[in-house]
Amino acid sequence: MAEQNSVVDATDFPIKKTREEDEVEATTKAPDGISSVIPGWFSVTSPMWPGEAHSLKVEKVLFQGKSEYQNIMIFQSATYGKVFVLDGVIQATERDDCAYQEMIAHLPLCSIPNPKKVLVIGGGRGGVLREVARHSSVEQIDICEIDGMVVEVSKEFFPDLAVGYEDPRAVPEGTYDAVIVDSSDPIGPSKELFEKPLFESVAMALRPGGVFCTQAESIWVHMHIIEDIISNFRQIFQGSVNYAWTTVPTYPSGVIGFMLCSTGGPAVDFRSPVRSIEDDDDNQKEALKFYNKEIHSAAFCLPSFAKKVIMH
Amino acid sequence: MAEQNSVVDATDFPIKKTREEDEVEATTKAPDGISSVIPGWFSVTSPMWPGEAHSLKVEKVLFQGKSEYQNIMIFQSATYGKVFVLDGVIQATERDDCAYQEMIAHLPLCSIPNPKKVLVIGGGRGGVLREVARHSSVEQIDICEIDGMVVEVSKEFFPDLAVGYEDPRAVPEGTYDAVIVDSSDPIGPSKELFEKPLFESVAMALRPGGVFCTQAESIWVHMHIIEDIISNFRQIFQGSVNYAWTTVPTYPSGVIGFMLCSTGGPAVDFRSPVRSIEDDDDNQKEALKFYNKEIHSAAFCLPSFAKKVIMH
Repeated sequence: MAEQNSVVDATDFPIKKTREEDEVEATTKAPDGISSVIPGWFSVTSPMWPGEAHSLKVEKVLFQGKSEYQNIMIFQSATYGKVFVLDGVIQATERDDCAYQEMIAHLPLCSIPNPKKVLVIGGGRGGVLREVARHSSVEQIDICEIDGMVVEVSKEFFPDLAVGYEDPRAVPEGTYDAVIVDSSDPIGPSKELFEKPLFESVAMALRPGGVFCTQAESIWVHMHIIEDIISNFRQIFQGSVNYAWTTVPTYPSGVIGFMLCSTGGPAVDFRSPVRSIEDDDDNQKEALKFYNKEIHSAAFCLPSFAKKVIMH
Repeated sequence: MAEQNSVVDATDFPIKKTREEDEVEATTKAPDGISSVIPGWFSVTSPMWPGEAHSLKVEKVLFQGKSEYQNIMIFQSATYGKVFVLDGVIQATERDDCAYQEMIAHLPLCSIPNPKKVLVIGGGRGGVLREVARHSSVEQIDICEIDGMVVEVSKEFFPDLAVGYEDPRAVPEGTYDAVIVDSSDPIGPSKELFEKPLFESVAMALRPGGVFCTQAESIWVHMHIIEDIISNFRQIFQGSVNYAWTTVPTYPSGVIGFMLCSTGGPAVDFRSPVRSIEDDDDNQKEALKFYNKEIHSAAFCLPSFAKKVIMH
């Protein structure tokens, strides 16, 4: 086990660093990051969800910068706490981020008996890392975030999230019990995180019966993306392939989904968690805000319109 | 059974018609109904959810009017179909309304064996009526909407919703197997629909073991309102008192909740539906888009932060 926390350089993992400038352009906001459409408000619009916008009232812009990969902004909102923005799209707010971070970590990790080695891809904000670290069985956590500025800015402005980086179990390389992809939308620097080569690498990196969880968009707005992902995953993952979802008010349409897959080997029934993180979590400073055993199973229950596409 | 469809006049039911002009004023938009903050977009803001706004792109305004009770607007949106607006707040869109209408009707009605007499309070758009009418055991549906203009406008612009009015089982008065309150937020004309006298009347109108379902706001933004409602309901309803929720992208925070209560008498376990509407629904023109047996039970599973308040 390493003495120090470390962030794996992207070159350790097959993420192409090339990017399509024109695609990024479409979601890049004015330099001040604040929407010109509602003065004093930050508005999220994107070709990914045409015709709708979600806006938060801005109290103060805390940080603005341009990394090698994307525009980064942090602002203090009137009613959602601090807000983390990449290329004009809200990634996290202090008020509702618990739903995303807890679900993307505990849905896969509570579905297997004894997770020891976990890889997080993306997740530069550190929140997923923090949630993974709640599992006392975990001995090693590797994190692979291409954008160093995301990590630095998170440590400064979201210490509650970035506390994950202080966990000494974060060391590089291995074959994994679980891999989690915590990405933004599939335009801009996260494009490769939605493509087949990455998922094939993930499947190879997992042990037999290992589990994979990735952000998988909204059933209300991105059914075609979800359909494509599922058809890819059915070819790549020899175990089970499932879709789950949760509510996150500041994401487009107010919900976000996850794909939960397992490799060939011991079967994994994601709908019935084999362990309770609540029991595991006695020595944690802060209790879980969102995740519990009931909400875990409920997350796999789909509205009829989504079931028809996803379970055909 | 009446020959004709009828809409019960509010005087048949103890809804006070007085209103607080100043409270309504706070949510009333400019006369053209379109927000001035995003030209060409309709924005929902309210003192009920400060600091956030949800906006839809407008293609064309189809109707604008002022009834005795509220401002009514219908517009064609770019990506959510037709949108129904009362006092500046989105009530329904063609794209996501199925989630609300199906859940508010089938959560209570699938929880009892043989619903015959059902009362709908509010629900002028007719969508709840349509969903109630799917239950073949139902012999009588009473609807009590104060605002006749809501009914007329719905019939003209939302024929798919208002089809409920054509059902010959819609006749007035009685003691009920189920009462459903389909209301807007507790400011303006719907204020009384969140107050104790109405709920006491409802409890009296129900048969022993009868069920009640009412719109009950969002766990993300209105926890205090929910807490008050629950404490009232625990005094009023002698059976069980439960909270359930669903996703509706165009409502603030993207979710909406329901209170499900039963009167003293045969116990009702709302989490385990006793009947499947799918079986009942063979002779319906259009299949359910959202509701199914799994999503029924899942709706009662709450995030930890909500569970702590609601189940204490």
